[in-house]
This record gives sequence, C-alpha cells and structure tokens, in this order.
Amino acid sequence: MVIWAFSMKSDKKSNPGDYILRARYADTDQMGIVHHARYLEWFESARGHLIRATGYTYKDLEGKGYLMPVLEACVSYIKPVEYDDLVRIRTRVIEASRLKIKLEYELTRDGEEEIRTRGYTLHCFMNPQGKPVRVGKDILDIFQSIM
Amino acid sequence: MVIWAFSMKSDKKSNPGDYILRARYADTDQMGIVHHARYLEWFESARGHLIRATGYTYKDLEGKGYLMPVLEACVSYIKPVEYDDLVRIRTRVIEASRLKIKLEYELTRDGEEEIRTRGYTLHCFMNPQGKPVRVGKDILDIFQSIM
Amino acid sequence: MVIWAFSMKSDKKSNPGDYILRARYADTDQMGIVHHARYLEWFESARGHLIRATGYTYKDLEGKGYLMPVLEACVSYIKPVEYDDLVRIRTRVIEASRLKIKLEYELTRDGEEEIRTRGYTLHCFMNPQGKPVRVGKDILDIFQSIM
Amino acid sequence: MVIWAFSMKSDKKSNPGDYILRARYADTDQMGIVHHARYLEWFESARGHLIRATGYTYKDLEGKGYLMPVLEACVSYIKPVEYDDLVRIRTRVIEASRLKIKLEYELTRDGEEEIRTRGYTLHCFMNPQGKPVRVGKDILDIFQSIM
Repeated sequence: MVIWAFSMKSDKKSNPGDYILRARYADTDQMGIVHHARYLEWFESARGHLIRATGYTYKDLEGKGYLMPVLEACVSYIKPVEYDDLVRIRTRVIEASRLKIKLEYELTRDGEEEIRTRGYTLHCFMNPQGKPVRVGKDILDIFQSIM
Repeated sequence: MVIWAFSMKSDKKSNPGDYILRARYADTDQMGIVHHARYLEWFESARGHLIRATGYTYKDLEGKGYLMPVLEACVSYIKPVEYDDLVRIRTRVIEASRLKIKLEYELTRDGEEEIRTRGYTLHCFMNPQGKPVRVGKDILDIFQSIM
Repeated sequence: MVIWAFSMKSDKKSNPGDYILRARYADTDQMGIVHHARYLEWFESARGHLIRATGYTYKDLEGKGYLMPVLEACVSYIKPVEYDDLVRIRTRVIEASRLKIKLEYELTRDGEEEIRTRGYTLHCFMNPQGKPVRVGKDILDIFQSIM
Repeated sequence: MVIWAFSMKSDKKSNPGDYILRARYADTDQMGIVHHARYLEWFESARGHLIRATGYTYKDLEGKGYLMPVLEACVSYIKPVEYDDLVRIRTRVIEASRLKIKLEYELTRDGEEEIRTRGYTLHCFMNPQGKPVRVGKDILDIFQSIM
C-alpha cells in the first residue's frame, strides 16, 4: 500500500506549479482511456513546469551537469481520464537532500476536486558520465524553494 | 520503500513466462538510456506473454468482457538499459482473487543475473461498461495456474 | 519528392489554428532531439486544436459516429527540435470533400520563422463499425470553414 | 500520391530482413487499432533488424560516429492492425549513396499476403556534432549489400 505525503484536498490554495494539459488521442488505448504509462510522461512535464517556476529549468540543470534520473516511480490510478479531457497536475517536492529529490503528483480534471491519479517519483543527481553526485547548496536551495 | 515479493535470483529455474525484447531506439531519451515510462509498456507485454502461456490470451479475456485496468504500478529503476540491449522480463502472479490480480516483474539483460528494474502492477477486473466485476472460478484458475 | 501546398512564410498573418506546445523529455531520443514519430502525435493534437476553433471538436465528431482514421501521413524533417523548445504548429485544411480531408502542418520554434518540420495527413470518414462513409454538408462545412 | 518502389507481392521469396513483432496494447488507441505514429517506431526497429543482417548494427554505426537521422518519412495506412496481431515487416534499401539512404517497408499480418501498411524513410548521415557527412565506401557497401 502506497502512502501519500500530501493531499490537494487539504490545501486548496492556488499553486504556481499546477500544470494543465489536454489528453491527446495518442495517449489513449483501446480501453478508451488514457494508457497508464502516459501518466509518467505527464508527471515528467509537470515536474519540469514546477522547476521552471524557480527561475531555473531542468534543462539548465542538465546544462550544469546535473541529470536527475528516476530511481523509483509509483502511480495509483483511481479514476480514468479520457481523450480531450483537460487535466491539472499539482506537483510538490516532498523530500530534498543533496543526493535525492522526491516529488508527488496529484491529478484532477481541471475545475474538479476529485483526485483521479496520484503518484510519486524519486530521483538522484547524476553526472553526464552516469555517476551519482551530491549537489551544492545552490541546487538544493532550488528544490527547497518549491517544497 | 517498496517491498518485493519474489526474487529471480533465489529462483533460477527456467520460466515459460520469461519475455525477451530488444530495446528500441524510440525507447531511449536524451539521457542515452531507456525512458522510465517505457518499462510500463514492456511489463504490459510481458504480462500478456505470461497469460498466453495458460492457453488463454488477454485478448480472449477482453473478448469475454473482462478488462484488466491497472490500479497501481510501481517501478524501481536500479540500473539502466540501453538501445539495442536484449532484455529478459520474468513475470509472476503474486496475488490472485476474484476481484484483483497483482503481478511482479524482474528485468535483466539477457544472459545476466543482475536485476536492473523491478516493478509490480495491481489490476482489477472491469466490464466493458467500466464497472468492477468479480470473475468466476474459471478465470481465477487461469491466474492461479501461473502463480 | 513531396510537394507542399501552403507555406507559412508566404502568409504571416496570425492564425487561430496555431497550436503551441513544449517538447517533453519523453519526446527525445538518444540523438538528443525529438524522435521523428512524435511529430505525428503533435500534428494530431494540432489538428484537434484547429477543429476546436470551429466550435465543434473532434470528440464531437466521434460522438456523432464520424471517425477520421489516417490514410496517409508524410513528414519532412528539415531541422530538429530539442527538449524544452516551445514550438508552434500551423495547421490548414487543404482538401475537403464528403469522403476525405487533407491537412498540412508547418512547425517552427515559437517566435521564429524558419520551418523545421512540415507534414500532411490524409483522412477518410469512417463509422464506428469501420466502414468508410460520406459525411453530410454540415460536417463538410466545418472543414471548409477552416480551409 | 506516393509511389512505391518495390512490392512484397511480386517477390515472395523469404527475406532475412523480415522483422516480426506483436502489436502491444500500448500501441493501440481508442479507435481500437494501432495508432498511426507507432508504425514509425516499428519501421525503425525493422530497419535496425535489416542492418543487423549485414553483420554490423546501427549501434555500431553510431559508435563509429555515423548517425542516421530521418529526413523524410511517409506511411500509407491501407488496412489497420489490431492488438495482439503478429505482424511481419519486410524492409529493403531502395537507394544508397555516400550521402543518403532510402528504405521501404511493407507490413502484413504474419502468414498473410495482403499489405496493410507501406512506408519509406529517407536518411542522411550525420556526425555526432550534427553535421551531414559523406560516408566511406565501407559504409556504403553495408547498405548496398542489403538492396
């Protein structure tokens, strides 16, 4: 049983990190709903969007030599999303250290409160040669500013 | 921390459910490794391959009106896989009831023992109208035969 | 050699059908650029966006029993697009009859004029049973309004 | 109208470059058929499979500094393919020079003769810095051996 650290319901204030997207036809499968693997791509975009709110972008981080591969990803699919639905993903950094970052995601249809999907991803920092690295305080500060 | 129920290492006997695939170029991202979302598509294929070993196919199940949407999916990315790598996925049913099925996946490079990715997916049974259903003993038997 | 029917360069006026998106990490491959298959997903979204400008949506069309499968798709990749690039896709209906619709797409980076990718897709109308159908004047009018 | 250079029908002899795959659930969309963008991923795999028949792999070519980005891709979708279908892709090099390679693809369901999809891709050679290059006779010979 996956335990979630934050809940959008208990915190309804607007969030600059909210990411809005429209489900594409290519996101669906023959069950008539968005395929479960696509949510990981959506969370990735939501993550990039949240980081952008700090003034840095994930692209900047890669440019400085800090890649953030996914160590662990879990998704709980509560209610499906369909083609053309406008969805809102609220992302939050829930753990941040010089070695690892953990983010949580809550997905609703835009304008609704009912959470349809939640998930988390755990990341380390890695250099371009593929070795795990500790980041400096400047990088840690970026992530702590969006916790 | 995700806790895994079975280990390929402790059970080296050959498994008819092993699924072999070659990582495609389209599976990679600019980090030079297979993108983390693609493993869910691979696990899905590995799951279909395991079910086929029973004499039924997942397509047959959908034909009988039993869809198996994913309720939960978790993946632990231990070591990456690269373009053109030949990978082996060992799949096992670890929980089976008339309401839910849980499967675990272990991924190695073919010919190696080191587990590079593991994951699980939890499924319910759903009818074509989208309602959860209890399956009969005949369907449950299919999944119990591959535990 | 593919011959293109319209050119964004020769028609700089703003277009309500312009569709803006940001290239996702999952869109890239190990060449460090957006994978060529993804453009077809982007064009599909751009197409849906253009149709929406008529007041109808592609979802509405499917709801009325008119599916629009792709009969032919061609893409010319002139210059690549990278992760995090903001791209603009200008879409136009270039042929419309009761049997078939052809659309063309031109992709630039937002704020630039240089065309990086162009493509077309040809569609027929099909009923939910998979048979090609002729649409009525009302449906044809929708597409002619965005030529 | 796209004109195709070769036809599987007129050449039924077995081909070492034939590539067999099974359509995945994730390949489908809500139309209940394989999504049109996925064929480009399949053709890419079929291309890699054909090159492998020469003793070299596309990975080897990239290792030598010769990337082969797609300049142009066209697909003609004649009849759809469904989930779990076993499909066969016959690939052939139809043009080869020191600057460009063109390949054609014909897709049938395994065991059938009816062509369901055909397509071509045109590629140049590019160095890792993104500049087009002319390859030596050794590389050209690889492609000419599979024409």
